[in-house]
Amino acid sequence: MNTLIFTDSDRLDTNLIRIADHRLDHLIQVLNISPGDKIRVGELGGKMGRGTVSSLDAQAAILSVELTEAPPSKLPVSLVLALPRPKMLRRILRAIAEFGVGELHLINSYRVDKSYWGSPVLDGGKMQEYFIQGLEQACDTVLPRVYLHPRFKPFVEDTLPDLIVDRRAYTAHPGDYPACPRGLSENVLVVVGPEGGFIPYEIDKLQHAGCEIVSLGQRILRVENALLSLLGRLF
Amino acid sequence: MNTLIFTDSDRLDTNLIRIADHRLDHLIQVLNISPGDKIRVGELGGKMGRGTVSSLDAQAAILSVELTEAPPSKLPVSLVLALPRPKMLRRILRAIAEFGVGELHLINSYRVDKSYWGSPVLDGGKMQEYFIQGLEQACDTVLPRVYLHPRFKPFVEDTLPDLIVDRRAYTAHPGDYPACPRGLSENVLVVVGPEGGFIPYEIDKLQHAGCEIVSLGQRILRVENALLSLLGRLF
Repeated sequence: MNTLIFTDSDRLDTNLIRIADHRLDHLIQVLNISPGDKIRVGELGGKMGRGTVSSLDAQAAILSVELTEAPPSKLPVSLVLALPRPKMLRRILRAIAEFGVGELHLINSYRVDKSYWGSPVLDGGKMQEYFIQGLEQACDTVLPRVYLHPRFKPFVEDTLPDLIVDRRAYTAHPGDYPACPRGLSENVLVVVGPEGGFIPYEIDKLQHAGCEIVSLGQRILRVENALLSLLGRLF
Repeated sequence: MNTLIFTDSDRLDTNLIRIADHRLDHLIQVLNISPGDKIRVGELGGKMGRGTVSSLDAQAAILSVELTEAPPSKLPVSLVLALPRPKMLRRILRAIAEFGVGELHLINSYRVDKSYWGSPVLDGGKMQEYFIQGLEQACDTVLPRVYLHPRFKPFVEDTLPDLIVDRRAYTAHPGDYPACPRGLSENVLVVVGPEGGFIPYEIDKLQHAGCEIVSLGQRILRVENALLSLLGRLF
């Protein structure tokens, strides 16, 4: 936790917050704070700055906060991702918030197990928890926006074309395709398939909707590794 | 598992192998193989090709193998990494083999907990197990070479200068440094610090040994995420 994220419900007063949940354990056990210490804080969805510990006991920490900085800008990307298995999804949600992906579309695909759509990780509250862990790591306050598309065909036929009307879209897929671009500064959309890859029908549909199919090289990478490597390469 | 990796001890004959351990469970339960099926195989440290299932029961699978292809080339990089905590190290060992890092130096640093050097993950056999999981994923057969350097000063003063005598070396570190380069084709050495970063003394020593300090941007990334993003960006 490199930034303590708080919400309006933690406020005692305009510039005074009270932390009494699992964040308190972290403040005490990991950061080992004492009254007078200053730590980085940020208001969820708002500004960032410094918090000064004004009092501390086993029940709660009271901090006076001074919020002066805007959060860092997001990456210029919308990420479309075939819904991964829950364990991997948790790590990916954290990483997405950490890297600064601002918009995530989770889609269905032939190789997405139906049971994944029932995973508790997809509950709004749970997703927010994982995102906040990423924001705390990267010193950001703004949650990614998430959209669920549990049917592939309506997404690719009706939604995707609108999402890419004014920008380029790339799908990384194994095979003899042009190399994925590097170091972009313009806004793009990126599509990442499921473990095992999109099936040919899906690649056809994505291409027809306007996606360029690109290669990340000969090696078959795990989805989460491919995703992080891709973000490092694109931006 | 995209490739079944076998060793000489699995051989019944020049082109016949017998699989009877945890790999058999995977062949049956995940790949659901039957006699006559063909799967990708590779000999550890050697060539890759096809294996045809000639017989199969609950005790063992017998495959006839035809090894015709060289494994993919490695990335042109030596990676120097401050020893991560064991749980993260496991994931990083898998990912390193998957990405094709050929040489790994695990080093000490002020922020590396001493207990990490006693972790069972560092046993040669355990490391090989995690590497093989990465090779199976990426369809490669060649294990990364690993060197342990449990003392920072002798490594940075005596070993590191020899490692970078004929190539450039980069250390990613938060701060106002030149941006990390992209899309390299020449051989380089890359140094990645511990959770919390190198301390100023260590950065000075690395710089003095010939490392260029570079920035990956404003966000503070988890070590494993920074590493994968960095590999995607560099190559």
